[in-house]
Amino acid sequence: MADAGQKIRAGIFGASGYTGAELVRLLGQHPQVEITALTADRKAGQAMAEVFPQFIGRDLPALTTIREVNTDAIDVVFCALPHGTTQHVIADLMMDQPSLRIVDLSADFRLSDVAEYAKWYGHNHEALDQQKEAVYGVTELYRDAIVKTRLTANPGCHSTTAILPVVPLLRAGLIDTDCIVIDSKTGMSGAGRSASEAMLFSEVAEGLHAYGVGKHRHTAELDQEFSKAAGHEVLASFTPHLAPMIRGIYATIYLRTKGGASAGDVHKALADAYSGETFVQVLPLGQVPQSRHVRGSNNCQIGVVADRVEGRVIVISTVDNLLKGASGQAVQNFNAMFGFPESTALAISGMFP
Amino acid sequence: MADAGQKIRAGIFGASGYTGAELVRLLGQHPQVEITALTADRKAGQAMAEVFPQFIGRDLPALTTIREVNTDAIDVVFCALPHGTTQHVIADLMMDQPSLRIVDLSADFRLSDVAEYAKWYGHNHEALDQQKEAVYGVTELYRDAIVKTRLTANPGCHSTTAILPVVPLLRAGLIDTDCIVIDSKTGMSGAGRSASEAMLFSEVAEGLHAYGVGKHRHTAELDQEFSKAAGHEVLASFTPHLAPMIRGIYATIYLRTKGGASAGDVHKALADAYSGETFVQVLPLGQVPQSRHVRGSNNCQIGVVADRVEGRVIVISTVDNLLKGASGQAVQNFNAMFGFPESTALAISGMFP
Amino acid sequence: MADAGQKIRAGIFGASGYTGAELVRLLGQHPQVEITALTADRKAGQAMAEVFPQFIGRDLPALTTIREVNTDAIDVVFCALPHGTTQHVIADLMMDQPSLRIVDLSADFRLSDVAEYAKWYGHNHEALDQQKEAVYGVTELYRDAIVKTRLTANPGCHSTTAILPVVPLLRAGLIDTDCIVIDSKTGMSGAGRSASEAMLFSEVAEGLHAYGVGKHRHTAELDQEFSKAAGHEVLASFTPHLAPMIRGIYATIYLRTKGGASAGDVHKALADAYSGETFVQVLPLGQVPQSRHVRGSNNCQIGVVADRVEGRVIVISTVDNLLKGASGQAVQNFNAMFGFPESTALAISGMFP
Amino acid sequence: MADAGQKIRAGIFGASGYTGAELVRLLGQHPQVEITALTADRKAGQAMAEVFPQFIGRDLPALTTIREVNTDAIDVVFCALPHGTTQHVIADLMMDQPSLRIVDLSADFRLSDVAEYAKWYGHNHEALDQQKEAVYGVTELYRDAIVKTRLTANPGCHSTTAILPVVPLLRAGLIDTDCIVIDSKTGMSGAGRSASEAMLFSEVAEGLHAYGVGKHRHTAELDQEFSKAAGHEVLASFTPHLAPMIRGIYATIYLRTKGGASAGDVHKALADAYSGETFVQVLPLGQVPQSRHVRGSNNCQIGVVADRVEGRVIVISTVDNLLKGASGQAVQNFNAMFGFPESTALAISGMFP
Repeated sequence: MADAGQKIRAGIFGASGYTGAELVRLLGQHPQVEITALTADRKAGQAMAEVFPQFIGRDLPALTTIREVNTDAIDVVFCALPHGTTQHVIADLMMDQPSLRIVDLSADFRLSDVAEYAKWYGHNHEALDQQKEAVYGVTELYRDAIVKTRLTANPGCHSTTAILPVVPLLRAGLIDTDCIVIDSKTGMSGAGRSASEAMLFSEVAEGLHAYGVGKHRHTAELDQEFSKAAGHEVLASFTPHLAPMIRGIYATIYLRTKGGASAGDVHKALADAYSGETFVQVLPLGQVPQSRHVRGSNNCQIGVVADRVEGRVIVISTVDNLLKGASGQAVQNFNAMFGFPESTALAISGMFP
Repeated sequence: MADAGQKIRAGIFGASGYTGAELVRLLGQHPQVEITALTADRKAGQAMAEVFPQFIGRDLPALTTIREVNTDAIDVVFCALPHGTTQHVIADLMMDQPSLRIVDLSADFRLSDVAEYAKWYGHNHEALDQQKEAVYGVTELYRDAIVKTRLTANPGCHSTTAILPVVPLLRAGLIDTDCIVIDSKTGMSGAGRSASEAMLFSEVAEGLHAYGVGKHRHTAELDQEFSKAAGHEVLASFTPHLAPMIRGIYATIYLRTKGGASAGDVHKALADAYSGETFVQVLPLGQVPQSRHVRGSNNCQIGVVADRVEGRVIVISTVDNLLKGASGQAVQNFNAMFGFPESTALAISGMFP
Repeated sequence: MADAGQKIRAGIFGASGYTGAELVRLLGQHPQVEITALTADRKAGQAMAEVFPQFIGRDLPALTTIREVNTDAIDVVFCALPHGTTQHVIADLMMDQPSLRIVDLSADFRLSDVAEYAKWYGHNHEALDQQKEAVYGVTELYRDAIVKTRLTANPGCHSTTAILPVVPLLRAGLIDTDCIVIDSKTGMSGAGRSASEAMLFSEVAEGLHAYGVGKHRHTAELDQEFSKAAGHEVLASFTPHLAPMIRGIYATIYLRTKGGASAGDVHKALADAYSGETFVQVLPLGQVPQSRHVRGSNNCQIGVVADRVEGRVIVISTVDNLLKGASGQAVQNFNAMFGFPESTALAISGMFP
Repeated sequence: MADAGQKIRAGIFGASGYTGAELVRLLGQHPQVEITALTADRKAGQAMAEVFPQFIGRDLPALTTIREVNTDAIDVVFCALPHGTTQHVIADLMMDQPSLRIVDLSADFRLSDVAEYAKWYGHNHEALDQQKEAVYGVTELYRDAIVKTRLTANPGCHSTTAILPVVPLLRAGLIDTDCIVIDSKTGMSGAGRSASEAMLFSEVAEGLHAYGVGKHRHTAELDQEFSKAAGHEVLASFTPHLAPMIRGIYATIYLRTKGGASAGDVHKALADAYSGETFVQVLPLGQVPQSRHVRGSNNCQIGVVADRVEGRVIVISTVDNLLKGASGQAVQNFNAMFGFPESTALAISGMFP
């Protein structure tokens, strides 16, 4: 629990990527946080403002390697490192420094079934003990466990966007589990800052394409959460697309209801599920959300529309992939873990236009 | 049949919109066509280059009203007017001038069942005689009839994109007709040039949204063509989206096979269906198309990918909405109708980047 | 001066435009402000969240007409109305309610010489008394007067961007006043939310053009401020351009030094002028700013680069047109007027990417 | 001169870059050209359609190394290789194969003064003999020499855009040579296809910045051509910018007239200079061009506007950087060299929207 007057000392590991930069921006305006360590192994020695000029003039620690970090002097680590690497870093941290708490933005601790991890990621999990402590960090669904854990596994951006609207419907038994189609579109920033031909402006602007068709790794998170919510195995169809925009995830979800449930029933179940939540807004029945209206905020906006064919419902869900889809939810989880109001340092209204 | 040496005299009705401008661009480079009339009722009297500065320096007739056009002096009309208006204009043309041939880009003559027209468009069809002569203009599927008709009804942009890959599969009986989901994304130019708040740059850039959810009018074309191909009523799920790009339609189509058919079978059926076609390219099995690679061309590129779950296939189809999705296919149909090689004046390679 | 515990009651006039929405977003996170009135004459009766869905779930007053506002119940008005209209609204407010303070975002009170106003805006100024009280609101240059005034005239977006780097150089006598060229590029959101063909996505994306060439009204503000700073008439060359982006102003300024001054001297003068400022960052000599790094913040970043020809210097200045270029500076001015720290409710780091 | 019936055999060296792809697209629709060789050293062995899927279905030679090309079997080489490398490749070609003709798109043969080359490019020129034969390939200005040469040095994209409007004014002695400011904006495709962080979509979209400030290499071409046209050394100010678009160059040029010349005189000089040209359109006095209206065409559109201050004129020039700014002008030069109509295979109307 946070001690009044004393700030939480935060380290951000992997600060030279986009989710790292977003964490620095958010935590930089958090009244109870002091950023005391920033790491970026390949850019160690540089100032954060050299790597991200939006921070020119801000008072921030220089980038270091992970080894250089004095872990005694931090209370929480936000870990924005590549999967595979992450599990070793976090296992070491948790063993060396039992009081440390961690929000991990990689995929390493999201799958509770390590066989599934090995299948989707192509190598065995090597931090099995730590994995057992991990809580899957969709805040609204697992808040009670997040409050208590040492290790929150922040979900994938496509995953959060699809799980928030689908899980309550599965829990309520309202939908046919054999016929769930999730067509998800993301902005480019989700792909990170590593240079590759396919991510060049001239290759991405003025066009659209699907990727990872039939095999994207976020599918494993959907399988885990959907199956758990339904009480039996659920294998949705999921296809991610890259749209020519920087931020935003937009999932169009095609559902069929069970037992004569209507679009209105679906809408009511979602409105009830999120009625007390700051960051999830269920729009009036029939209203379609737009990704631009959540841009810059930690919000998830959800719309429910009846199809022309009875029994079919289209549910649409949208988040800012760098916020509710990554760093924003990470800070929300941090707030929950440390007893701060969940919206501290997070925008509750999108920056539009 | 075209007489060597004598050019076909073309009138473009509705030349101040985007499909009109694209027709002017294409026909302006057609060696057997002379553009002799351009209409735009509200901009009559202006030069085409004032309305579209890309034509500065080109020798083109001034814009007039439709009434001012001397229909004796034209052989073909490309009609790019709003639906509703169009049926009256075309009925008059066909009665007054029986030798005239028409390619209509509106929705007015696409639905052969006039009750369906009334249902989807909210008013009765008032050119029933002419409607009977109309041929639905997906060139590759209805070429024989297009060659002979006086009136080709050029299909909707979403419709062409979805019909080309799905119809051969329905004809071959390869797919479950109860479970077709078409998630289609379009660039902004398909919405035309009329000023509205929702189409402003600041409202469209850096975001994505669905529109017409559960009720878009192109659905009626899909119902007609899918049901005809399957031999019984087929009601697909179809949701169009607006992506922040000018050109391109990208349809992600979720299918389930019948009778143990594999993704390879689906791929083979499509490759066979379009093996001799200039403008339809079926990519190698597993390869995913991108809308940007057809931009500026009359091409449709189709990809087939197996899902991780057996029996599920993802088929992806993409066109340039202003070309194969509108004016390009109109010129292709014109070429077929007048006996020219179908690719005359049409780009066979996309302009990328 | 702000009374601890009691919030300032703010009215936003013209809340249905982009600067209005941005004011709602900013003031909605201001701990000492309560938004008590929102007006939009043509959308009166609607909820703010209907007009701008980013506010779904927020507790905001409904939109009303200006007449319906109880001016007794507000302490400050942010006025985001069209020029011409504004002067009448503000004159009435200031006469009826002497204790009210106003930040005006229109052009009506920016020019102290009413003959200049009449020349550039095409009609006489009709609130001459109020005009005399107005302070031109570039906060960093006129802070002392802003603190005391009832009426701050928030500057134009191009104006702020150019004035911040040029005025200190004119005051220091470092540059040739006969040879100032300002090539300014803006994002589309500066043009507002009124529907017009020229502002459609398909007309703005994938292209660039100048507008108002040789006659843009922000020129009048530059003339006023440059001449005042130099002590004699200065008529810079100024051309605005529209770039295919939502936010950002980027001014490339071509200067020639006087008396053998170097680019280093120019840089030092600017660095000194803004050394204590939160929102103006002068980059190291030779470093070029990018508009994206100030996006979402109230910052102005300034770079100074020597040309290959001695005596020529390129100075580059960039702001977010809706923040430091409009609503952000309005809130900064409000903070100054009411004794709050200037950065309250304003982002000090850009949201990149 | 081209022999009727026999096609010119063309090799494109460096076909895996954007200018290479554009050459393939253009020459692929040229009735008198057969593409017989495509090189890309690092992608040798791949099909062109693998590297650029817009060519799927087209009949093209596979990519090879340069060494593998049988130069006996080609009549013309389009060379789209990096500078430095190029001069060696071309020197070898010209010595080995005297009948071969070459259009070079690199910078290697643009500067006739090899000392200038060494200064701007940082190494000595090593193909001095070949350099002497090179003709600077702004077609409209050097057509007579281009027709006869073996080696055309295709100009830089910024260079063509600025030279076309400025050179006639210098030749006519209409402008003050001490005060030329060229503010140029380019789309991203000019930067090529090599992966780098600064060229990622998320780094380029929604923002604008200058680059190469005070030292961009195209300046050397401007110096050469402006000085030659004026008859004495002219050193313009030139700053290139990167705008968030794929294609287009847009140069805003600030001029001061000499001897009382008016904007009308400037306009007349340009209209006269280009009155017979297919690809250069001088707009009516006062009309401002937009880069989008030349997109996809080989056109250069030029506008002339009077500033509010007498004696100052703003001239604006725009091209598609990959066409008139690179591959389009290369094909235009090829057409001139081989006696074909200059517009063969080139679009004379922009593709807008």
